[in-house]
Amino acid sequence: MSKLYFRYGAMNSGKTAALLQVAHNYEEKGMKVVVIKPSIDTKGDDKVTSRLGIERKVDVMLAPDEGIMEHMILDKPDAIIVDEAQFLTLDQVDELYAITKIYGVPVLAYGLRCDFQMKGFPGASRLLELADDIEELKTICRCGRKATQNIRLIDGEPTFEGSQVAIDGTANITYDSVCGECYLKLRRHHG
Amino acid sequence: MSKLYFRYGAMNSGKTAALLQVAHNYEEKGMKVVVIKPSIDTKGDDKVTSRLGIERKVDVMLAPDEGIMEHMILDKPDAIIVDEAQFLTLDQVDELYAITKIYGVPVLAYGLRCDFQMKGFPGASRLLELADDIEELKTICRCGRKATQNIRLIDGEPTFEGSQVAIDGTANITYDSVCGECYLKLRRHHG
Amino acid sequence: MSKLYFRYGAMNSGKTAALLQVAHNYEEKGMKVVVIKPSIDTKGDDKVTSRLGIERKVDVMLAPDEGIMEHMILDKPDAIIVDEAQFLTLDQVDELYAITKIYGVPVLAYGLRCDFQMKGFPGASRLLELADDIEELKTICRCGRKATQNIRLIDGEPTFEGSQVAIDGTANITYDSVCGECYLKLRRHHG
Amino acid sequence: MSKLYFRYGAMNSGKTAALLQVAHNYEEKGMKVVVIKPSIDTKGDDKVTSRLGIERKVDVMLAPDEGIMEHMILDKPDAIIVDEAQFLTLDQVDELYAITKIYGVPVLAYGLRCDFQMKGFPGASRLLELADDIEELKTICRCGRKATQNIRLIDGEPTFEGSQVAIDGTANITYDSVCGECYLKLRRHHG
Repeated sequence: MSKLYFRYGAMNSGKTAALLQVAHNYEEKGMKVVVIKPSIDTKGDDKVTSRLGIERKVDVMLAPDEGIMEHMILDKPDAIIVDEAQFLTLDQVDELYAITKIYGVPVLAYGLRCDFQMKGFPGASRLLELADDIEELKTICRCGRKATQNIRLIDGEPTFEGSQVAIDGTANITYDSVCGECYLKLRRHHG
Repeated sequence: MSKLYFRYGAMNSGKTAALLQVAHNYEEKGMKVVVIKPSIDTKGDDKVTSRLGIERKVDVMLAPDEGIMEHMILDKPDAIIVDEAQFLTLDQVDELYAITKIYGVPVLAYGLRCDFQMKGFPGASRLLELADDIEELKTICRCGRKATQNIRLIDGEPTFEGSQVAIDGTANITYDSVCGECYLKLRRHHG
Repeated sequence: MSKLYFRYGAMNSGKTAALLQVAHNYEEKGMKVVVIKPSIDTKGDDKVTSRLGIERKVDVMLAPDEGIMEHMILDKPDAIIVDEAQFLTLDQVDELYAITKIYGVPVLAYGLRCDFQMKGFPGASRLLELADDIEELKTICRCGRKATQNIRLIDGEPTFEGSQVAIDGTANITYDSVCGECYLKLRRHHG
Repeated sequence: MSKLYFRYGAMNSGKTAALLQVAHNYEEKGMKVVVIKPSIDTKGDDKVTSRLGIERKVDVMLAPDEGIMEHMILDKPDAIIVDEAQFLTLDQVDELYAITKIYGVPVLAYGLRCDFQMKGFPGASRLLELADDIEELKTICRCGRKATQNIRLIDGEPTFEGSQVAIDGTANITYDSVCGECYLKLRRHHG
């Protein structure tokens, strides 16, 4: 059985580096991967870029109304790898699940779970419901605990209002990852 | 930091036995637990019952509009344990998360992820979004693969229509756990 | 590929209840399991017994110089389940690994990692080196942290000298599970 | 409680990239890490190098008879990170465990489990016995299964004889990672 893998983690937990490593591992063995990024994520255009200074061209920039099977047929990959998977639509996640079961192609999806308001991204919530294998990529909060939540900063100040999607680096917005306790404390002070 | 743990698994994967073991482990060390069951689950009344033949009285039958803090204050538990956690409301999951962070009481929630139509139970989806620690309780499909999905049977026949909640044993309904491949095959034949 | 699974945990973490659940899950689907216990463990004779009050007859009491394949051939199991797997010999672990790969029969082994002196049991160390899938069964220390080490008590007093194997309940010996910090503190005071 | 983490994986599973990511995550939050490499590993001198094309200077090249505490005192790190941890001595692993418990400094160790003869590296076996948290870094076998074992190649030919330590790239030696089934098949043909 091929599996749908979901690797989730807070902002800056190393999701893209892990993704690049997996693509490298497949290709080093002479296998083919297709790297997909939902086109809703405009950061870095058609590249996936890790803060470690490594990057790779995306094979498919996937529009919200687009299916995945058509790309499968052209590319016949040994594995499908998805960056920023929280931006997948529910239908796309269901299609990826079916691909693992009916065509036997493993899918490795990397993404966030919740947005800066602790609301789940729809694509991530569906991945969590369906994935055959769920694993957390961990990072650290400034307080020393595991960071699990994402804080949105405007000009460096925590904010708890706004739309779900606002890409890092636009309109003075940045993100930081924090533990649940620090998140709740910051929200009491700034929210 | 106290954590919100979510232990998910298909029907008959041993969630209740695992829950009873954890309660036993705490009490053996002289600590106090509160066992909660959402009242929407009417099977077994105010008991949690494992197919291994062991059971335990539930401390709190939790109505959908009820909060958890009030029970906390009375009982001052060292841990909160929730059976059939997929039936929690979104607010109750958020409250449990806050309890782990603000009061430092660990919460261990056991439940299903998806219903017989592969749709997430709202309480489970929220737990997957927020839990600090997610782990699968595994069981086996008749084909030998890991069972991850739930099939609803009426008089032994797979059915793919009906309401999300229909408790095991009522109206000739039973459930079986299957792998994703067997689920999709059965749905093509019976759906 | 069938896998060699090792489920380790400190004393009283619920290893036997988990084992009984897995056996039940297989049998409920009409599959056959063989439950093995190394004969070095004399507690409970030919039974595996959980502190939750459930038990089961062992199919094979395995002597240290005995092979496993012969039992396989007679019983043609769908899975092999081993209790007290820390008492397996190195050769037996290697044989179990080969059985999973050559005959495609999954093996689920449950056991301790380290003895009361924090020294690895040889069978457990070999399982940790070879297992395709390693998972911890967790329990709680009196201090609230995760218990990972085992303390030997003689008449209730911690002791740090003695032979590796001394079965629970003989010669006034009992065991308790503690976290690493409590273990090291106790050893400074009593060791 | 600070933990001793052991992240194991076959050759080329991405252990060093994961290590570099963790170091980056700590430093991005303004925390200090000490990166240790046992001096027995002569590849890359005083650098840790990932096949993804990223590297970092090692802070401490650790000789087999050297202790770790002295480096701790000088550097007062927020975390200790160990590359090629399979080459640690038993005493060094025990010391790292004590450091996590007594001084509250987390230790993240990355390494192989078994050598090319499926024998455990002593440092790895001790880490598996003691680590508070064990996780596998996965990679793929040419056959599509998970690679868990390491094959030594001399001029591209599998070999099953020789000393445990022979660093990649010396004396025409290279390594490949394979699944357990492929390992056993290769050994029957070449062993």
